[in-house]
Amino acid sequence: MGDLFIIKIGGETINSKETLKTCLKAIANSGKKVILVHGGGKKVTELAQKLFIPQQMVEGRRITSGETLELCTMVYAGLINKNIVAGLSAQKLMAIGLSGADLNCVVSKKRDASVINYGFVGDVVKVDDVVFENFIAGNIIPVVNSISISEEGDLLNTNADVMAAEIAKAMSAKYKTHLIYCFERSGVLQDITDENSVIPVISKADFTQMKETKQIADGMIPKLQTAFRALYHGVEEARILKSDALEQYFNNENPGTNISLH
Amino acid sequence: MGDLFIIKIGGETINSKETLKTCLKAIANSGKKVILVHGGGKKVTELAQKLFIPQQMVEGRRITSGETLELCTMVYAGLINKNIVAGLSAQKLMAIGLSGADLNCVVSKKRDASVINYGFVGDVVKVDDVVFENFIAGNIIPVVNSISISEEGDLLNTNADVMAAEIAKAMSAKYKTHLIYCFERSGVLQDITDENSVIPVISKADFTQMKETKQIADGMIPKLQTAFRALYHGVEEARILKSDALEQYFNNENPGTNISLH
Repeated sequence: MGDLFIIKIGGETINSKETLKTCLKAIANSGKKVILVHGGGKKVTELAQKLFIPQQMVEGRRITSGETLELCTMVYAGLINKNIVAGLSAQKLMAIGLSGADLNCVVSKKRDASVINYGFVGDVVKVDDVVFENFIAGNIIPVVNSISISEEGDLLNTNADVMAAEIAKAMSAKYKTHLIYCFERSGVLQDITDENSVIPVISKADFTQMKETKQIADGMIPKLQTAFRALYHGVEEARILKSDALEQYFNNENPGTNISLH
Repeated sequence: MGDLFIIKIGGETINSKETLKTCLKAIANSGKKVILVHGGGKKVTELAQKLFIPQQMVEGRRITSGETLELCTMVYAGLINKNIVAGLSAQKLMAIGLSGADLNCVVSKKRDASVINYGFVGDVVKVDDVVFENFIAGNIIPVVNSISISEEGDLLNTNADVMAAEIAKAMSAKYKTHLIYCFERSGVLQDITDENSVIPVISKADFTQMKETKQIADGMIPKLQTAFRALYHGVEEARILKSDALEQYFNNENPGTNISLH
């Protein structure tokens, strides 16, 4: 079974041309099979401010009105996606930008509004592994943004961490999948003020304990939960690292935090 | 040789949900092989106004600063492209959104700035017909926006009429290509105030004469020139019609204006 790296890049990578280039270069130099996944929330927040479109976050998730969905579609599927695709092209790699709507490759279901009405937010129900497999087999890097599509053909906003995890899970039947979350910090930190306090491995037991002792930042909890769920469903490796550590990662230097079931 | 319809839809189709749906339904019902091409200039102009980014047009072409390129990339490759792809998905058609950067399918060259500096504007130098052929053969509709890519990997803004014509030209070796410009009027009009004055056929000789007698609207001239160039380079048919006349077109009712070399 070959290896496949599902690499999710966050705002800190996307918003800096230099960091993005370093990241894409590391991918090019690795020669590995890769699927890139991205959101771009910070850019949406900026644009929403300029356009006076109020934004509301609940537990790190964006309440997505019709207007906000338009912003997200513009920023994720347009601006950021095409800049990444072009950046890979500049590295002489062949890439294709995909939202979940393209070839219906990631189908989602609008989230139930009975508790919190998140608006046009979708939870992934189906990933078409054949679509991804066909591109990967042709040495094409899929660059996936976090806009998905419902069975009825409506665009929905999906969390990029979850999107990456769902793709990794779906590809696990054919590949040893590695789910890599690039992040603005060096990994999960023991002390949030100290970049040198990276925790090298977090097991499920560690995580339970860290939650109990409130030793873990609120924003990190859903990311880790998503990573654990992916591992339960056949993903080989889950890791959180700093964007510019991808090269070290491909050189087997184990940067960042390894999320491990055991 | 099979038929292939390269259909360019303009702002009037894109900005109205109803018109867009009618248009996509006509494509679905036709069962024909189609490549859709779109820009979305009006939406860019609106967004630019809201964001106080000044816009300048020269001979119907947008001067494209770095900021404006970002807007175009957001609107064309993001908002409009994904809404069309989703609209086709709602019609149970499989579609894939493509900018020229995706799979490097439409490569352009930055326009020479010595006479007028158009900024980040590119003229098409290469269309990868194999990319389009592969999707079409798989019954997938490519939905192409007018962002292209340079050999160096830079995104560039390209005129959507020209993009459609260049794709039609490139596909002419394998298909009888039909270049269809959907438009806000019923065709080229004898009298611009009368929708019933559609000129059914314009030959090259007619066009030359109409230009001399100033019988033709300035905005229409580059569109017709582009259509004639496409016909010179192997395109089978070029036609300008109203967006909602696509169904009639597929029923061989010859709506709009046929652009003809002879």
